[in-house]
Amino acid sequence: MTLEKIVSWLNDTLELDKFDDVSNNGIQIARSGSDVRKVAFAVDGSLASVKKAVEADAQLLVVHHGISWGGGMKAITGGTYNVVKAAIDGNLALYAAHLPLDASKKCGNNWEIARKLGLRRVTKAFNYHGNVIGVIGFDSQGRKIGVCSGGAASFAPEAKELGCDEFITGEADWGETIAAENVGMKMTLGGHYETETYGVKALMREMKRELRVNCVFIDR
Amino acid sequence: MTLEKIVSWLNDTLELDKFDDVSNNGIQIARSGSDVRKVAFAVDGSLASVKKAVEADAQLLVVHHGISWGGGMKAITGGTYNVVKAAIDGNLALYAAHLPLDASKKCGNNWEIARKLGLRRVTKAFNYHGNVIGVIGFDSQGRKIGVCSGGAASFAPEAKELGCDEFITGEADWGETIAAENVGMKMTLGGHYETETYGVKALMREMKRELRVNCVFIDR
Amino acid sequence: MTLEKIVSWLNDTLELDKFDDVSNNGIQIARSGSDVRKVAFAVDGSLASVKKAVEADAQLLVVHHGISWGGGMKAITGGTYNVVKAAIDGNLALYAAHLPLDASKKCGNNWEIARKLGLRRVTKAFNYHGNVIGVIGFDSQGRKIGVCSGGAASFAPEAKELGCDEFITGEADWGETIAAENVGMKMTLGGHYETETYGVKALMREMKRELRVNCVFIDR
Amino acid sequence: MTLEKIVSWLNDTLELDKFDDVSNNGIQIARSGSDVRKVAFAVDGSLASVKKAVEADAQLLVVHHGISWGGGMKAITGGTYNVVKAAIDGNLALYAAHLPLDASKKCGNNWEIARKLGLRRVTKAFNYHGNVIGVIGFDSQGRKIGVCSGGAASFAPEAKELGCDEFITGEADWGETIAAENVGMKMTLGGHYETETYGVKALMREMKRELRVNCVFIDR
Amino acid sequence: MTLEKIVSWLNDTLELDKFDDVSNNGIQIARSGSDVRKVAFAVDGSLASVKKAVEADAQLLVVHHGISWGGGMKAITGGTYNVVKAAIDGNLALYAAHLPLDASKKCGNNWEIARKLGLRRVTKAFNYHGNVIGVIGFDSQGRKIGVCSGGAASFAPEAKELGCDEFITGEADWGETIAAENVGMKMTLGGHYETETYGVKALMREMKRELRVNCVFIDR
Amino acid sequence: MTLEKIVSWLNDTLELDKFDDVSNNGIQIARSGSDVRKVAFAVDGSLASVKKAVEADAQLLVVHHGISWGGGMKAITGGTYNVVKAAIDGNLALYAAHLPLDASKKCGNNWEIARKLGLRRVTKAFNYHGNVIGVIGFDSQGRKIGVCSGGAASFAPEAKELGCDEFITGEADWGETIAAENVGMKMTLGGHYETETYGVKALMREMKRELRVNCVFIDR
Repeated sequence: MTLEKIVSWLNDTLELDKFDDVSNNGIQIARSGSDVRKVAFAVDGSLASVKKAVEADAQLLVVHHGISWGGGMKAITGGTYNVVKAAIDGNLALYAAHLPLDASKKCGNNWEIARKLGLRRVTKAFNYHGNVIGVIGFDSQGRKIGVCSGGAASFAPEAKELGCDEFITGEADWGETIAAENVGMKMTLGGHYETETYGVKALMREMKRELRVNCVFIDR
Repeated sequence: MTLEKIVSWLNDTLELDKFDDVSNNGIQIARSGSDVRKVAFAVDGSLASVKKAVEADAQLLVVHHGISWGGGMKAITGGTYNVVKAAIDGNLALYAAHLPLDASKKCGNNWEIARKLGLRRVTKAFNYHGNVIGVIGFDSQGRKIGVCSGGAASFAPEAKELGCDEFITGEADWGETIAAENVGMKMTLGGHYETETYGVKALMREMKRELRVNCVFIDR
Repeated sequence: MTLEKIVSWLNDTLELDKFDDVSNNGIQIARSGSDVRKVAFAVDGSLASVKKAVEADAQLLVVHHGISWGGGMKAITGGTYNVVKAAIDGNLALYAAHLPLDASKKCGNNWEIARKLGLRRVTKAFNYHGNVIGVIGFDSQGRKIGVCSGGAASFAPEAKELGCDEFITGEADWGETIAAENVGMKMTLGGHYETETYGVKALMREMKRELRVNCVFIDR
Repeated sequence: MTLEKIVSWLNDTLELDKFDDVSNNGIQIARSGSDVRKVAFAVDGSLASVKKAVEADAQLLVVHHGISWGGGMKAITGGTYNVVKAAIDGNLALYAAHLPLDASKKCGNNWEIARKLGLRRVTKAFNYHGNVIGVIGFDSQGRKIGVCSGGAASFAPEAKELGCDEFITGEADWGETIAAENVGMKMTLGGHYETETYGVKALMREMKRELRVNCVFIDR
Repeated sequence: MTLEKIVSWLNDTLELDKFDDVSNNGIQIARSGSDVRKVAFAVDGSLASVKKAVEADAQLLVVHHGISWGGGMKAITGGTYNVVKAAIDGNLALYAAHLPLDASKKCGNNWEIARKLGLRRVTKAFNYHGNVIGVIGFDSQGRKIGVCSGGAASFAPEAKELGCDEFITGEADWGETIAAENVGMKMTLGGHYETETYGVKALMREMKRELRVNCVFIDR
Repeated sequence: MTLEKIVSWLNDTLELDKFDDVSNNGIQIARSGSDVRKVAFAVDGSLASVKKAVEADAQLLVVHHGISWGGGMKAITGGTYNVVKAAIDGNLALYAAHLPLDASKKCGNNWEIARKLGLRRVTKAFNYHGNVIGVIGFDSQGRKIGVCSGGAASFAPEAKELGCDEFITGEADWGETIAAENVGMKMTLGGHYETETYGVKALMREMKRELRVNCVFIDR
């Protein structure tokens, strides 16, 4: 299958053009030649992930955290050089989808987590720079639960205002911890990495089902 | 002693006007009346710290993390309301010093940590938006150690370039963890709160010594 | 009646979310406890207004000019401290609506002034950063009159281009006075305060009628 | 005398390159031919001033308020067209100096006002975007007086903090009036135009004395 | 015919309000009196064009490149003075339309060029800051041709991605030349001036047809 | 010789830290291993230059125009991919110096051109965003000549104001051509590429002399 076709499917499935993201979503490293026989999936576009994807004989690595953010890469040095060199040496393309993979109802982190937790009456919530990425739902005891994967602890005060009994995210830095305490919001931290495996795995599941392409998940 | 005199001493000692900080350093909450009989010190200007400072009969609370950042406080609601109400009800002034209390050679977090660790040949390093806030020194085995308190893990790649064998900071978020791994930088995390008690305590020690005013440290 | 219900009515009536305002509209100071028995209305969220509202036994003060603009309040000191302290001491919440209270057809300053003047064929005019806030209409002699309350004299040249015979606003600074002279636009200054009592009073009238809550106007 | 020589004298005397001003100081409208026989001075570069300067047979008009501010003139239409056309028809050059003519110790508005009031121990004060433009001094009764000409009422709270008994400026808009009231600062308004005639006249006096060129003051 | 009517026709025909342009489109220099008997058209609002338009007895000059860009004109000096003086002396108004005159399907540069080249299945392409200004079509041999008049060579890499066999623009600077080489995009340069005569002439043709006003094209 | 030593010499010689440049100067692509036996020099960091440098057995390519500008590279795709892949495949590091290589008195484009032309009384001129990069001097007939290599035609009006008889640069786009005409400035265009070979060759000459390292110039 061609890289162009897979990228087009990813862009459409994740509705990439609807998000205003600090991640430069889409293809971040090209490759030579168009034919893709296996697609690897990982949370991070790290040196370790790229090496494992090459070893797994993949031609494309799809990640939640890529290597190009904001204005872009000032230089291909240090860690960026290590990742780029490993990808180019292995002729591996890198595709990143950040907020779209948090927010997607079909296969985003937060809807997936809500499904795993068996939440009911789930609705979208938590607006990050114009992009509503998280969810709110009710557990079996009727408690209102806010969910926003990864490093989203800055939403804890908003969860409080929305009347949540609990707010689930991946990690919180010290300032966010204090801010949640100041408003008395109970916050559960599931790990930045762990809470963001859900979207990546769901996206892999959908690609396999719809494109019938070989896929492999690269764990940490 | 007057509040004005104490604030003037703090501004001079910490060289507040030399820093371009995202924290709005200085007095962040005023009080009625000028007389200060006891000064409380804490890492955070949290609801808990303010309440304990009032209970300890302090008229001024000096913190590393205040309540006003960047453009300022859009509204006095939620956690901000809780902190401001507790301070005004207790007639407690709040003074914040962020980067100046990281960087000060006399009583900043990083020089204090270097002294506790017995580092030698200590020099300034790690430039944060024009402010050099951390230090580099050598331990008893001659290993090069970078130190930057709090949430400074984004300096890990720079520590690598500077040839450090180890980089000590408070906490690292997931992206910073991956970035450090990608360049192979060994990073030691001492806790955001813990690494930033050093400067606050040193500042209290100096104030006691120089101004002979009653002081109390508010632990978490 | 709960504060939440009143705030929700204000937000809907004034269409707060349709305005891109330099004022941080909405609740600017919270209070403890939700029950509101009386609502005070004033043009300015000044120390004097807050004190009078507390004396009048109000739990909420609704104003045209609040205390939080642009990025927000850098510090709660000086005049901001005086206002915030008076509000917190009196357990009074503060709600501000700036451009929405200029523009509202139902109860905004400019439509109210047009009604008082008996203008006919009134239409919206004068675009302030994407928000059309003023009006244009015709008086009994068929003269075209532009109206924009408060400090809107910078619209005088636009009023000239639109063919107005007279432009009514509250106050003009020196540069605006010269600019109006340079294009030969007749400008009538009704006072910043005076022209903005119309909206506040109309909003009070509507709230009384629709929510049947106790209200009081705080004059200067 | 050549226009270049006069402009050079103005730039040096007013230290134009030391100011970061929202006014685009210097020559704002050129003229054809270099010879200048008479220089007119006015507070405003208005249509009226330009016409009077041409009638007075001047080749250059020096003003405190020019026609180009910030990014510049988007179009030469309306009042800008009227001023530019009058200047070009009369072959009159326009030179503007805004903050430099507030701040100059030799001939700025504020030092001149301080001299007229007989203030003693006069020092610079009131920092406007990095430019210290006003003064503080003591009157014959020992009262501390802040002075900042024109529309500088937003400095009233700073004057309060500096311990002034009175703050003199030209005009105050409504928000500035309330802000001064909130901190209890007595403010005296001498008129925007009137307080800014002092610098223009002093500059004319110095030019006459040093360059021996014909000068005329254009009053309003 | 009145200037207002012609300007209104230009604004509507070119859909001026749909473009976010670095050129300050619309009337850039006004004139005295409203009656327009002849309209001149030129690519550039240069001194030469203005002089020729005045000689041709025009009251309005319509150009693709005006004199006011971005924030506007800081001063009316140098070349700007020369153009403005010539226009005011000749009582000639200047109207500029930049991106709207590249993009217009009815009379823009790029659709006109496509018509001259006989391209088929022409569609819009090449997004400049939110404005789609160029076209793509197929020539008689079925080759895909991208067209973007003037200085649009920075679109060459995008033309490559879109699968163009050839990209036609006016001029390319050195960096753009290298960028096109790096992706192997064949680029044809027709001259900045030459490729932008098409839109100006087409606009003149339409104005003549619809408004029945006297028109003249000012060539370089 | 180590890459670190050469980079350090380049940074010092060109005074890299004194320039505020839109080019991200310094190492833009790293390499594996530190040993450098040959250094290639070219005007452009193009695909062609990189390939020729690898063929010439260089480990480092020093250029005037690199691949990272402004915020950086959003993605390593298209032409950027081609250049990066060629460099990584050939294990070639890329170093860029833009404005510093225009401005250097020792080996910058403009001082070199002045020396080739035999200009006398040469001084610095032409301020680009705070960096003075060009020169002005006098030829054998006493004519005043401004020089600014590459795409610096926007300085032509400033050259006019400075009294130049001729202004030499590399290339001019259409708008710059018109602007120079409007002020009557004679402009000589020597080619963007050609005028910028001077600095690159001079830098190579100095490196050979001072570091005694093998060097090669890569012509276009």
